[in-house]
Amino acid sequence: LKIVVTGAAGFLGRALTARLLASSADPDDRFVFIDRAPLIAADPRVRCVTGDLGDAATIDDLVAGAQVLYHLAAMPGGAAESDYAGSRKNNLEASLLLLERAAAESGRMRFVYASSIAVFGDPLPAHIDDATCPRPSMTYGAHKLMVSVALCNLTRLQRLDGFALHLPGLVARPRAGAGMKSAFMSDVFHAMAHAERYVLPTGAQATAWFMSRPRCVDNLIHAGTMAPPPEGAPRALTLPVVRASMREIIGALARHTRADASLVEFEPDAKLEAQFGRLPPLTAAWAESLGFRSDGSLQALVASALGDAGYAA
Amino acid sequence: LKIVVTGAAGFLGRALTARLLASSADPDDRFVFIDRAPLIAADPRVRCVTGDLGDAATIDDLVAGAQVLYHLAAMPGGAAESDYAGSRKNNLEASLLLLERAAAESGRMRFVYASSIAVFGDPLPAHIDDATCPRPSMTYGAHKLMVSVALCNLTRLQRLDGFALHLPGLVARPRAGAGMKSAFMSDVFHAMAHAERYVLPTGAQATAWFMSRPRCVDNLIHAGTMAPPPEGAPRALTLPVVRASMREIIGALARHTRADASLVEFEPDAKLEAQFGRLPPLTAAWAESLGFRSDGSLQALVASALGDAGYAA
Repeated sequence: LKIVVTGAAGFLGRALTARLLASSADPDDRFVFIDRAPLIAADPRVRCVTGDLGDAATIDDLVAGAQVLYHLAAMPGGAAESDYAGSRKNNLEASLLLLERAAAESGRMRFVYASSIAVFGDPLPAHIDDATCPRPSMTYGAHKLMVSVALCNLTRLQRLDGFALHLPGLVARPRAGAGMKSAFMSDVFHAMAHAERYVLPTGAQATAWFMSRPRCVDNLIHAGTMAPPPEGAPRALTLPVVRASMREIIGALARHTRADASLVEFEPDAKLEAQFGRLPPLTAAWAESLGFRSDGSLQALVASALGDAGYAA
Repeated sequence: LKIVVTGAAGFLGRALTARLLASSADPDDRFVFIDRAPLIAADPRVRCVTGDLGDAATIDDLVAGAQVLYHLAAMPGGAAESDYAGSRKNNLEASLLLLERAAAESGRMRFVYASSIAVFGDPLPAHIDDATCPRPSMTYGAHKLMVSVALCNLTRLQRLDGFALHLPGLVARPRAGAGMKSAFMSDVFHAMAHAERYVLPTGAQATAWFMSRPRCVDNLIHAGTMAPPPEGAPRALTLPVVRASMREIIGALARHTRADASLVEFEPDAKLEAQFGRLPPLTAAWAESLGFRSDGSLQALVASALGDAGYAA
C-alpha cells in the first residue's frame, strides 16, 4: 500500500506516522509524509516531503497511486479566526484540491479527514447526536464543515471512500500550542504533572469533550483500515468522547499525579468558555456502531494522556 | 441604493428584476443585472452586464458600492450532477468569490443567496425543522450547502449581512427546463392548463414542497429589505412551503383549469421520486417568525402559479 499523511510533523501527525510505521505488517508498504516543517525519517519505507498543499503538482505527487490518505494539515482555530484569507487558502482550498485530486485517482482512495467538533458552534443544543445540525461559530469550524460536505459528496459519487471525523479536544498537546484557543484543555495536564500553579480561563463547571492522542490515533487508523460501511451511510462522524467538567479533569489529574487540585485557579473568559466549555452530552451512535471508541473513562483518559506526554505513571 | 441581481435572465431572475424595478420608490435607486445570457433593459436606472461570475474584475464591478445583492445565478441540479467540475466552478467557486468580494466592501452588504432544499438529500427524516441536519445527496445541494455555510460565517464575522434561503420547487417553470430534474413539478401545471395528456415520473402519492414564483419573489425581496434579525440568529433558512402530493396538485389544477385529472398518468422513476417526491412535513418556524410566507393554500398556490405563467383564470 501507499499511505499518505499530511500535517505529518504536527502533534497528531507525529503520533499517527510513528504508529503507522510500527504497525505496518507488509514490508512492501510505502509511506509519504508531508508537512511545511521539515521531516526526517531514516526508515527506508518513508519518503518525506516538505511542501505546501496549495501546490497542485505537490498534491498530484502525493495522491498518485495512494490507497490511504490521512489529511491532518490545517491552520489552527485561533489563527484561522484572525486570518480569514489564510484559512480560506489552507483549510478550505487546499483540502478541496486534495480531495478532488484524490477523487481523480482510480481505486476509490480511502480518505480520512481530521475534521473538528468546531463544526458545532455556540450556542449548542442540550444534547448532540448524529442528527444535530452543525452551526459553526468560527471560521475554522465553517471551513472544516465545508470540506466535510465535499468529502461526503465525493464519496456518494463513488469517486473516493472518505471519512470526516469531527475530532474533540486532544490531550495533552504540548504547552503553548500555537494558535490553539483550547490550549487550556492540555495545559492543565502539564501544570498538574509538574505540580505548578495554573490559571484556567474557564470555571470549574466548564464541560468539554476529551480524547487522548493515542486513542485518537486508534480511531484514525480504524477509519483508514475498516471495511466500507453500507452505501448511503453517513461519512461525517462525531466520535464518542469522554465528556468531563474541568473540576472532574482536575480531580482525576490530582489522583493520578498526587499534585494538589488547589493549584488550579479559575479566571473564566466568558467568550472562550462559551466556545469550548459548554459541550452538552453526546451520543455518537453511528461512530460507535462502526467501531470508533472513546478513552472509556476519565481515569483511562488521564492515564493515556499523561503517559503519552512522557510523564511517568 | 445600488441593487445587484445575478442570474437576472433566469426564471426567477426575470420576475425578481421586474418586481424590483416596479416597486422601487426612490428615483435614485440604481440596478445592475448580470447574466451569461444577454439582457436588454430600456430603463435608464438599469445597467445590464453580460458576463461570467468566474471573472474577478466583473465581480468587483458588481459589488462596488452595492447595498443589496441577490445571487441567483447557478448551474441547475441535473447539469451539476453530470458535470462536477462545472458545478465546482459555477456554483461553488463563483459564489464564494462573490461572497468574499461583497464582504470586502464597506457597509455590510445585504446578500440574499438563492440556496435550495437540495441541501436536504435522501433519505430524509420524518419531519424537517430548523434543527434538521442537511445531508445533500446531489452535488448541487452539496455546493449550495457549502456556500450557505460560508455566507453564515461571513455574516457572523460582520463582514456582510447575508441570508441563504433554501428555496423549494418553484412553479410553474417553463416547460422542458434545461437540466432541471424536478421539471415534472412544473410540467404538470402546463399540461393541465392546455388539457393535454401528461406522464408524471412519480406516483400520485409523491409529496413535494411548492412555492409559486410570485411568492418566491416576495420572499427574496423581504430578505433583501427586512431589518437585520438579532445577532447570532440563523442566516440559512428553510422557507415555509405548500406541501402537497401530486394527487392533490392535480386535483387543484383540475378544479382551477376544468381539465380532466385523468389526463395525468403515472410512471414512477424510483430514484427521481426518492429525490424529489418524499418530502416530509416541514416546520419553518424561524423563517415564519422573520416574516417569510408560503403561498398559504393549495388553491392559492395553483392560482398564483397559473396566473404568473400567463394562463387566464
